[in-house]
Amino acid sequence: MNSFGRKYRVSIFGESHGVAVGVCIDGCPVGIALQQEDFLADLQRRKSGAKGTTPRVEADMPEIVSGVFNGKTTGAPITVIFRNENTRSGDYANLVAMPRPGHADYVASQKFGGYADYRGGGHFSGRVTLGMVAAGVVAKKMLTGSSIEASILEVGGKKFGEHEALLKEAMSKGDSLGGVVECHAKNIPVGLGEPFFDSVESLISHAIFSIPAVRGIEFGKGFAAAAMRGSEHNDAITDASGKTATNNAGGVNGGITNGNDVVFRVAIKPTSSISAPQQTYHFEKQTVEILEVKGRHDACIVLRVPVVVEAAAAMVLADLLLLR
Amino acid sequence: MNSFGRKYRVSIFGESHGVAVGVCIDGCPVGIALQQEDFLADLQRRKSGAKGTTPRVEADMPEIVSGVFNGKTTGAPITVIFRNENTRSGDYANLVAMPRPGHADYVASQKFGGYADYRGGGHFSGRVTLGMVAAGVVAKKMLTGSSIEASILEVGGKKFGEHEALLKEAMSKGDSLGGVVECHAKNIPVGLGEPFFDSVESLISHAIFSIPAVRGIEFGKGFAAAAMRGSEHNDAITDASGKTATNNAGGVNGGITNGNDVVFRVAIKPTSSISAPQQTYHFEKQTVEILEVKGRHDACIVLRVPVVVEAAAAMVLADLLLLR
Amino acid sequence: MNSFGRKYRVSIFGESHGVAVGVCIDGCPVGIALQQEDFLADLQRRKSGAKGTTPRVEADMPEIVSGVFNGKTTGAPITVIFRNENTRSGDYANLVAMPRPGHADYVASQKFGGYADYRGGGHFSGRVTLGMVAAGVVAKKMLTGSSIEASILEVGGKKFGEHEALLKEAMSKGDSLGGVVECHAKNIPVGLGEPFFDSVESLISHAIFSIPAVRGIEFGKGFAAAAMRGSEHNDAITDASGKTATNNAGGVNGGITNGNDVVFRVAIKPTSSISAPQQTYHFEKQTVEILEVKGRHDACIVLRVPVVVEAAAAMVLADLLLLR
Amino acid sequence: MNSFGRKYRVSIFGESHGVAVGVCIDGCPVGIALQQEDFLADLQRRKSGAKGTTPRVEADMPEIVSGVFNGKTTGAPITVIFRNENTRSGDYANLVAMPRPGHADYVASQKFGGYADYRGGGHFSGRVTLGMVAAGVVAKKMLTGSSIEASILEVGGKKFGEHEALLKEAMSKGDSLGGVVECHAKNIPVGLGEPFFDSVESLISHAIFSIPAVRGIEFGKGFAAAAMRGSEHNDAITDASGKTATNNAGGVNGGITNGNDVVFRVAIKPTSSISAPQQTYHFEKQTVEILEVKGRHDACIVLRVPVVVEAAAAMVLADLLLLR
Repeated sequence: MNSFGRKYRVSIFGESHGVAVGVCIDGCPVGIALQQEDFLADLQRRKSGAKGTTPRVEADMPEIVSGVFNGKTTGAPITVIFRNENTRSGDYANLVAMPRPGHADYVASQKFGGYADYRGGGHFSGRVTLGMVAAGVVAKKMLTGSSIEASILEVGGKKFGEHEALLKEAMSKGDSLGGVVECHAKNIPVGLGEPFFDSVESLISHAIFSIPAVRGIEFGKGFAAAAMRGSEHNDAITDASGKTATNNAGGVNGGITNGNDVVFRVAIKPTSSISAPQQTYHFEKQTVEILEVKGRHDACIVLRVPVVVEAAAAMVLADLLLLR
Repeated sequence: MNSFGRKYRVSIFGESHGVAVGVCIDGCPVGIALQQEDFLADLQRRKSGAKGTTPRVEADMPEIVSGVFNGKTTGAPITVIFRNENTRSGDYANLVAMPRPGHADYVASQKFGGYADYRGGGHFSGRVTLGMVAAGVVAKKMLTGSSIEASILEVGGKKFGEHEALLKEAMSKGDSLGGVVECHAKNIPVGLGEPFFDSVESLISHAIFSIPAVRGIEFGKGFAAAAMRGSEHNDAITDASGKTATNNAGGVNGGITNGNDVVFRVAIKPTSSISAPQQTYHFEKQTVEILEVKGRHDACIVLRVPVVVEAAAAMVLADLLLLR
Repeated sequence: MNSFGRKYRVSIFGESHGVAVGVCIDGCPVGIALQQEDFLADLQRRKSGAKGTTPRVEADMPEIVSGVFNGKTTGAPITVIFRNENTRSGDYANLVAMPRPGHADYVASQKFGGYADYRGGGHFSGRVTLGMVAAGVVAKKMLTGSSIEASILEVGGKKFGEHEALLKEAMSKGDSLGGVVECHAKNIPVGLGEPFFDSVESLISHAIFSIPAVRGIEFGKGFAAAAMRGSEHNDAITDASGKTATNNAGGVNGGITNGNDVVFRVAIKPTSSISAPQQTYHFEKQTVEILEVKGRHDACIVLRVPVVVEAAAAMVLADLLLLR
Repeated sequence: MNSFGRKYRVSIFGESHGVAVGVCIDGCPVGIALQQEDFLADLQRRKSGAKGTTPRVEADMPEIVSGVFNGKTTGAPITVIFRNENTRSGDYANLVAMPRPGHADYVASQKFGGYADYRGGGHFSGRVTLGMVAAGVVAKKMLTGSSIEASILEVGGKKFGEHEALLKEAMSKGDSLGGVVECHAKNIPVGLGEPFFDSVESLISHAIFSIPAVRGIEFGKGFAAAAMRGSEHNDAITDASGKTATNNAGGVNGGITNGNDVVFRVAIKPTSSISAPQQTYHFEKQTVEILEVKGRHDACIVLRVPVVVEAAAAMVLADLLLLR
């Protein structure tokens, strides 16, 4: 389903090449100052334009349709809409017969029986994350005193900043690269998280895996913890505020925030849409054929992902704050 | 909260040293043969007893309290209870003042203000996963024709089977080890998954992170995918059933099963409860002190986790099957 | 909260004098023909214009923003927006100090601390039911072979049709009238309803009481059943399809449809907004004062309610159909 | 489904003649004193034994299985179980072929395809309301300073107390009577209720219609309001606390409590199980036959309902209090 959250409830809608994409946010507290300008900085970080991102550039101007009065949230649902403008839908017609490897084309045709909007990935498009970014902006405003910051650690296996030659080379071959994003949430109150099932890690991972191209998530030491000993991994508590000497746990014990920074890393696969020729099954000809994907794509989607990761974390933490 | 699932809805209850732990399963279809014996094989796999597991051995005999009539499920909620019998609660009294590093003691005292049942970890205990295993047994019965199998890949950084000397040595020092579990779900129908927010990965990770000690999850190539190129990572579709030449995606595209095996790995941290001395904050004395944890614990909880991982995956896939 | 339904999930947003009101519908099956024209007949029935309804007449032209492709539903969320155009917000400024009796003005100021949009009732306005009517149109399309029809039984205690002189007289005094609406859902399959808590009556009443001005609901014989004997009230089953000789139960036994017509009645109070002078508390002057409500209002809102009642019933029955 | 509530979440399980019935309550705050004795007074009010109630008398002794430690709630789920002891299941075998008029027998056989536990009504039995009463006891403890009291207004169309001859006569003929229950919730804070969809009336009616035999509900003046004028029905606000001169609204405006008593009435049908002969369809013989219902039944179930109505109201108001 297209909704997430229990009190701060975010509902996503829209298609890449339809009329618009957007979000409806229910459960936002009253009195939060909110206007169009507040969204622009985060939206800008998600935008394409940099080397390695798609040449499709949209204005991404948010229209606040409901839930704000006299510049403040009213407690009623906040709906924000982004009109699609720069679309070239003709590029996608052949993908129905020849589903792109790594993409949702095949599963969408199976699940939605030919009715899914295939243009630009339709509702599966990364463009739908615009609504998440908007919901993240509002959530960050609710988390007064906290900060949530995600940044790129690696691109294509190289440390971020040392990856540029690799990206240039991959692009020259019509290929794509993945990467790793790390997120730090600071000054998060102790006690957020609702285990057994709604642990902080459960909810953050749930939200994060809704972002297209995510393949893994780990908290604190993550997979490295599996090779550590308890005596190494345990974080000694050093004061009455719960501060720990190390932060191997990534700020969460027993599914509940412990007051130290919440830290997690996210693995992003290389963009599935590549212009280099690939094999796929041709469902009309009933043979394997060579596909050359047209359309405009990101060679390295990870470059646009950090602000979406922040939004996912902010949505979850804002919801947990309201539930506490 | 303590419930999970939209149609196959699992509610967990109980404490480690209370009267009982158990599960209430709502939404199970009618007519599934179910009796006490059906639970025993999976419960046995979760049991302690092997080297590296706790000396507390419980009978773990399930009592089916509702939802079954004439040996078949009725469509009404199925409640299964496990009485606690082998408890030694005196061991835990000092943990209120001196919270164990890596454990929920500190966050529980903050969140529940001194009211939480601290005996044996209370509702945070791994013992609560008994209910998940029971829910997994029923879910597996719903997934006719499919199989879900989890096994240990690594313990303490060593390949499983090559780890035994390491475990012996860690135990001799009162220390603990972590590990990695891999799960394969085979013959899963195409089309399970309800993105945008309820992708297969979102729901499986949500359920998996409710298992105590989990620190990371990755699907298909997972974190390794972040260093691959699109041309390497994309799985070429080779026939009309959606079969792919490789399975780097781990059986999921766009959040929806594609008919190939669903594959994921889970990182388990070393058990937090170790008998080796550790530093922690003494909340009464208001200084850092040395803690020696008593009680009976698993030196290597990962040995008991695979069947719980299977249960989490089965719960999710059964729910998605009903939602399709 | 502003969402309703478990699989067919309807989220309402918007304010009477804001940018727009609308609805986001999640969980609609694929392949249902849907275009702007399909909404117009039901929207017309909800419109003002008849004697006894408000002189504020809006175009109420629905814009389908997402979820439809090539004239068919895609399985992605369907968002429909209605722009507000004919607003006169200056009329409402004094209601903050002097809340209207019978209205939400006082509770809204208490609950939302002065941040609620008070113009035209804001998110409490009956105008918000436009989104319900739109969701009802789509739901009716899902209920192939069934019909849902609501009509007015009584106005101001008189049989509908015999009420016109009474209405004219009430209007001449700046007063308002209530009424009773009856709804019949025919050809509903046997077996809809998910007790214990999600009985047909539970869900229909939940949806119906979200319509402003509803004060009561009864199924089948309703309150009259309380004075009957079991031998009178029990409906004898007369054939293998479950057809009953009488339909005192209103088509529901044990919370589940029995194949006979689902019948319920809804009590609508007289519109709270009247132009006749009334006493209310003046929160600035701290005395009881005389209020004369300005703005444009319905003297008899029941005249516009039947199509909203149908929509509520259709939403519930469509959801239950998907859940069956 | 068998769960209700968003933060105070009540899950019901069990069958009339199975092992037990019970309830699992999630989301209860910590620190509420709770022990077995606390349930007994309300359970006693629900018990049979009075004239007009079933001769099946159960001990109804609650076992608290989880969620309480040192006599206080811990924040973990509270599970309470009632073992069934006094059952005579042989009485019900013939109802599969000959469904009882007014009962769930026919719809259950259609919906659950022969797998439902038919003994004593199974999961449709009024006995399942034991769990609701238990959840109501805990909810009332959360509503400090408030009171919730339901009482019988009418039995069989006569004022309560004046009905006894009528009941005696109906029982002598193997017939049954219905009645009306009125509930008053006093000292409820202003501002409870979460419209648009989760108005106070929506949630209370949702919970109330899950009680077997309920046919109608009305708030304040209810159906009588439909024949009133706005100038009569509007309640004049008389002071800064929102106190109104009259309480025609039953304490709710715009779906939100206004600080006056919440008042509603519930119509209870005459018990469907009567020993007087009735016609029903015989599904094996495929003809209409005469049924004489055996088993032990309540001639006048309304006598046991008030405490269940209170429980439903308390569950909703406690949930809304947590959500505020």
